[in-house]
Amino acid sequence: MIGGGRGAFIGAVHRMAAALDGQIDLVCGAFSSDPERSRLSGGDLFLPAERCYGTYEEMIRTEATLPEHVRMDVVSIVTPNHMHFGPAMMALEHGFHVICDKPVCLNLQEAKILREKVQSTGLLFALTHTYTGYPMVKQARQMIAHGELGTIRRVVVEYPQGWLSTDQESTDHKQASWRTDPERSGAAGAMGDIGTHAENLAEYVTGLKIESICADLYAHVPGRRLDDDGSVLLRMDNGARGVLYASQISAGEENNLKIRVYGEKGGLEWAQMEPNSLIVRWLDKPMQVYRTGVGPLYPEAQVHTRIPAGHPEGYLEAFANIYRNVAYCLQARIADEAVDPLYLDFPTINDGVRGMEFIEAVVRSGKDETTKWILLPMVE
Amino acid sequence: MIGGGRGAFIGAVHRMAAALDGQIDLVCGAFSSDPERSRLSGGDLFLPAERCYGTYEEMIRTEATLPEHVRMDVVSIVTPNHMHFGPAMMALEHGFHVICDKPVCLNLQEAKILREKVQSTGLLFALTHTYTGYPMVKQARQMIAHGELGTIRRVVVEYPQGWLSTDQESTDHKQASWRTDPERSGAAGAMGDIGTHAENLAEYVTGLKIESICADLYAHVPGRRLDDDGSVLLRMDNGARGVLYASQISAGEENNLKIRVYGEKGGLEWAQMEPNSLIVRWLDKPMQVYRTGVGPLYPEAQVHTRIPAGHPEGYLEAFANIYRNVAYCLQARIADEAVDPLYLDFPTINDGVRGMEFIEAVVRSGKDETTKWILLPMVE
Amino acid sequence: MIGGGRGAFIGAVHRMAAALDGQIDLVCGAFSSDPERSRLSGGDLFLPAERCYGTYEEMIRTEATLPEHVRMDVVSIVTPNHMHFGPAMMALEHGFHVICDKPVCLNLQEAKILREKVQSTGLLFALTHTYTGYPMVKQARQMIAHGELGTIRRVVVEYPQGWLSTDQESTDHKQASWRTDPERSGAAGAMGDIGTHAENLAEYVTGLKIESICADLYAHVPGRRLDDDGSVLLRMDNGARGVLYASQISAGEENNLKIRVYGEKGGLEWAQMEPNSLIVRWLDKPMQVYRTGVGPLYPEAQVHTRIPAGHPEGYLEAFANIYRNVAYCLQARIADEAVDPLYLDFPTINDGVRGMEFIEAVVRSGKDETTKWILLPMVE
Amino acid sequence: MIGGGRGAFIGAVHRMAAALDGQIDLVCGAFSSDPERSRLSGGDLFLPAERCYGTYEEMIRTEATLPEHVRMDVVSIVTPNHMHFGPAMMALEHGFHVICDKPVCLNLQEAKILREKVQSTGLLFALTHTYTGYPMVKQARQMIAHGELGTIRRVVVEYPQGWLSTDQESTDHKQASWRTDPERSGAAGAMGDIGTHAENLAEYVTGLKIESICADLYAHVPGRRLDDDGSVLLRMDNGARGVLYASQISAGEENNLKIRVYGEKGGLEWAQMEPNSLIVRWLDKPMQVYRTGVGPLYPEAQVHTRIPAGHPEGYLEAFANIYRNVAYCLQARIADEAVDPLYLDFPTINDGVRGMEFIEAVVRSGKDETTKWILLPMVE
Repeated sequence: MIGGGRGAFIGAVHRMAAALDGQIDLVCGAFSSDPERSRLSGGDLFLPAERCYGTYEEMIRTEATLPEHVRMDVVSIVTPNHMHFGPAMMALEHGFHVICDKPVCLNLQEAKILREKVQSTGLLFALTHTYTGYPMVKQARQMIAHGELGTIRRVVVEYPQGWLSTDQESTDHKQASWRTDPERSGAAGAMGDIGTHAENLAEYVTGLKIESICADLYAHVPGRRLDDDGSVLLRMDNGARGVLYASQISAGEENNLKIRVYGEKGGLEWAQMEPNSLIVRWLDKPMQVYRTGVGPLYPEAQVHTRIPAGHPEGYLEAFANIYRNVAYCLQARIADEAVDPLYLDFPTINDGVRGMEFIEAVVRSGKDETTKWILLPMVE
Repeated sequence: MIGGGRGAFIGAVHRMAAALDGQIDLVCGAFSSDPERSRLSGGDLFLPAERCYGTYEEMIRTEATLPEHVRMDVVSIVTPNHMHFGPAMMALEHGFHVICDKPVCLNLQEAKILREKVQSTGLLFALTHTYTGYPMVKQARQMIAHGELGTIRRVVVEYPQGWLSTDQESTDHKQASWRTDPERSGAAGAMGDIGTHAENLAEYVTGLKIESICADLYAHVPGRRLDDDGSVLLRMDNGARGVLYASQISAGEENNLKIRVYGEKGGLEWAQMEPNSLIVRWLDKPMQVYRTGVGPLYPEAQVHTRIPAGHPEGYLEAFANIYRNVAYCLQARIADEAVDPLYLDFPTINDGVRGMEFIEAVVRSGKDETTKWILLPMVE
Repeated sequence: MIGGGRGAFIGAVHRMAAALDGQIDLVCGAFSSDPERSRLSGGDLFLPAERCYGTYEEMIRTEATLPEHVRMDVVSIVTPNHMHFGPAMMALEHGFHVICDKPVCLNLQEAKILREKVQSTGLLFALTHTYTGYPMVKQARQMIAHGELGTIRRVVVEYPQGWLSTDQESTDHKQASWRTDPERSGAAGAMGDIGTHAENLAEYVTGLKIESICADLYAHVPGRRLDDDGSVLLRMDNGARGVLYASQISAGEENNLKIRVYGEKGGLEWAQMEPNSLIVRWLDKPMQVYRTGVGPLYPEAQVHTRIPAGHPEGYLEAFANIYRNVAYCLQARIADEAVDPLYLDFPTINDGVRGMEFIEAVVRSGKDETTKWILLPMVE
Repeated sequence: MIGGGRGAFIGAVHRMAAALDGQIDLVCGAFSSDPERSRLSGGDLFLPAERCYGTYEEMIRTEATLPEHVRMDVVSIVTPNHMHFGPAMMALEHGFHVICDKPVCLNLQEAKILREKVQSTGLLFALTHTYTGYPMVKQARQMIAHGELGTIRRVVVEYPQGWLSTDQESTDHKQASWRTDPERSGAAGAMGDIGTHAENLAEYVTGLKIESICADLYAHVPGRRLDDDGSVLLRMDNGARGVLYASQISAGEENNLKIRVYGEKGGLEWAQMEPNSLIVRWLDKPMQVYRTGVGPLYPEAQVHTRIPAGHPEGYLEAFANIYRNVAYCLQARIADEAVDPLYLDFPTINDGVRGMEFIEAVVRSGKDETTKWILLPMVE
């Protein structure tokens, strides 16, 4: 693991997600750019001192020299955005698979270089767009893919949070500090941090691509250097229309990611804060609520569920689904077996590139008060 | 009553709303452009034949000649949009107060003429933007007006319906037929029919005005002549940002008008389909749910509630609040007394003009693929 | 109308329910035992002074002498419980149909006499168990009657309110005062006031009868003379088991009547505070939510709905369904036509007798600390 | 770990709960009474063959001989009920701490012997009544303990499931088979399996003890040997009244444990299927919804939360809270330090004894058609 030392947030999440299913052991880490802090953080995690490294370069270089059954298999990168590209490139170059937090890096250019590297090395690269790990999100995707809703006409994806309603970055709030700093976060604030989750979810669930956008971005908190609130008109590549928004000044909201998709025959609705329900409304039948673990579901939903219906699985379990799928793929590689395609389902470097394309488009649109529509790159 | 004969929808709603509180009696009507049908419709309502008129002109002219204690006091206009302006003008000219269904007429020009007539006659003109009649909407407006949420930063108002998902207008569906016909409905489809409700609600609740918009309108159903789906970026006159959308092809949705408003200190959420709850989230306090009839509420909410908490009041009661307030105002005029300002709260011709300004702006924006922002007229 | 003068609660509800559909006109009343107050109350309602009577006896006697097209058709009795029997008997004896608030009278003996009178006169007698007037309650009843859930095994009906959590009866709270007074309310407090609603709803929805009960009743508020909280084990006549409870000291609860019924194949759930949803869960299919006005519903549900889906109908509309059905039955009698059986569906004197049997059994059980089961009378 | 081999359900839950926080490593197991199956199961979990034992006796005996830093610290017992007592006694006798699935054993006598052993050895004994591990349950308990609701008057705790609606035990459904078998499950079916959870939750949240009960138990499915449905009237030791029920034939229900508690000033409601919300209603203030991680909460709730608000934590995290607290207590013992009392909060052998007292009382009451009230033993 790179990053995730004492005081970090997402590092602990990655560790819990990795541990949950007993498929992955944490064996080493460069938890902090401060070697002492790195060692202490590793100690908290019962790691031997010699595998708590002072820098990621040291870790990658040293681990690469260890015997195969000892050295790490995969690197988790859980640093702020500006510290994704370097570690990821180096890990791939040394033959390590990578699990990387989102967004994949600072800009589109970096993302494309990384994609090339992933392709040329043939290594696994997983991006933790957590929300696609929920079973009911997978059910939604399958229902649409199987045509149950008919042609998709409308997509509404919203992601309000309220935690940046005040000037948190001028306090010692670590998360707020780097997320509102263009040098560490990239060109977008809320749109990069959570807007990319919304974009990824919309494309994942519908199977469509965003063709063009028209965005209004704004920083409501005085002095803030990146957008904390933005709304985007969407046109999808099949002609569907919609809205996407991401806001971190929606005071009182927790983490209220929600998607609604409407087709010719019906519409579905999924909300991250009640993740085990998928509401499906029909033109001429009673509304249905699909529930994790209840009744006939697509296998894609079933295999990503651990416990019986009514025992709520949440965010960590969705996150763990990404880790577990990566683990199964690695095990299959090691055993030289084919992977059950159900487990191939996790976000990759392609999702990372797509996210960067989205960010660049919305930031450009947000700065342009006159041009209405901005095209996203065609998906290759 | 003008319109609302057999087979009509909104006429019956107006009649129930008028009857509920026992303050208004239906005394006459021109229920249909077909005199025979008008008489039959009136008979269904236990009206004497001589007060079931064949045309609205006949009704207004004849009623004007009746003794004061016999003749009607106020005219309800419940016809399709293109039949609002004529009856309303004539009623005002003959000294009758008017209650008119929304949107107020076919275009902004008509609306302004009507506004002038209302002002010059000094008569009452109520527009049935029903949703502002709900007690929890009034509570929301007062909370914001009293600064409980701080400066408003974000408004999200959405109005999805699904009933026009198919080509209803080519069947004999009366509602669908005129609502998708530019001659009878005006320049906008969904945006006129329900988008204006959303616009009215947003401005009513926040006390702000929409300053500029950027819209994407679309007709998804082949052959449809007016928009059935549209999304609008909003900028409010205090700098707040937001999104408004209105859709009648959101398959499976019933009548899901919902508003969320976020200020510096908290956010509120109200949904028409659960109208007796007002959810208020705070930056640093537990979420609250204000409920109709429960605990301390603003008097504006209290006086628009009839029955104890937990006995749900719905759409007809909200509608009746408009009728009842008009009745109280009329009674005060007749008694030459001042009206309690709590009852002066109903939508007027000014809301009608505003709705037309909104429609003209979004239709213009919807047709313009290049210009980003369209300004709405300054509110005089 | 008998009762319902200034300051009363349920009288106004009856009047709104009667007015809503334009089928019933209020023509006279004995609104108060104080003749002056009765006249004033009638004046508020725009009634001529000569038809505002000082006593119900005077009203019934006088109205009976008026010409048929002038005199009232049906008497609404909206007084406290101890004032139901006398007016109802006298109205029936003078040939008037009766609509009576629940519970039907003070005790089982009175109820049986009344039943005999209703049967011998052949007049209509409607009891306003409002909750059976909701469309989704009717849908639930039909689903069970048509065997959709299979044999019923379990019934849970609960009715918590919180308004009697404090000693309201020692203030001048009119409703609390008579409801906690055995002379005016009868042998039961909460069980009589709302427990009978729960009992009526359970038998109406399931089509089963309660065979035996075991009850624990209690008055939590010091000095209170009647139960304010009670729980009852139920055994139904088909072997189903269950629980019923009624509480008026469930602090913070509004009017939270809720029923759940489970059969071999599935279960349903309906809550009065969200009355337009009927949740149905299945053994092996996704959960469904039936909604008022949406998709295929039983005709019994459809004809008791006025406005399109998503425009919430509430308590007053459910109440009005009882009044409207009575009106349709009266109109059919007057026209000497058969009534559509869909409109014959309102609670009658039989429900009244049943309610008294229930009250007597639970009160007896509540006082008996040793005997476990008390049988209810077999239904004749 | 004892039990939890291939095909078992709760064993995997215990393992995920233990792994989540990185405080506990699975080091050995007797996963099955079939030695081969035990070894295979252990292999699935990456355990070395020599620590996959064929019997629990072998495991306990062998592990006790290993060096301190190698041998297991604590034994998890995840077998069916009849296989709790033996392993637990033997583990304690050999100096191992114990984490045991509920209910603690087959009958009250066993439970008391076990309690004595725990007390005499001074070892830790945790019972996995998972539901008390949820942060919002801890918040509820603290709110009541701090008197926020005033004196408690009413408790309603319900636990409907539907998975035993059919004759699952005659199929090869492993869970159904032992749970409906008195030899392996004990004297109660649903009341033992989930009724004890309800009882434990009610006493935990209210801080009260059940004083007496009156129960109606039933087996709806033909041929079933233990109750699958039961309802219980409750009297608490402070005079509060209430209802508890547990049902496994409530067709369509998943795992719908829910508790409501009413005091003089307000009432609270918590449902396991939406575990991150705690609804609190007040006599004269707007309803509140406390949310995991939002605003000021009692420290007892805060320390049992891992991730920021709006990232739902569920059943496994609640379960893990028990494991983590045990781990912290063990670490403190090993370090010879005092434990923060916040972490001492997990169910113990006392909860186990209490559960057996409850089961014995309800089973006795369920078989007795004449006696109304059964006293539970006074709590020592």
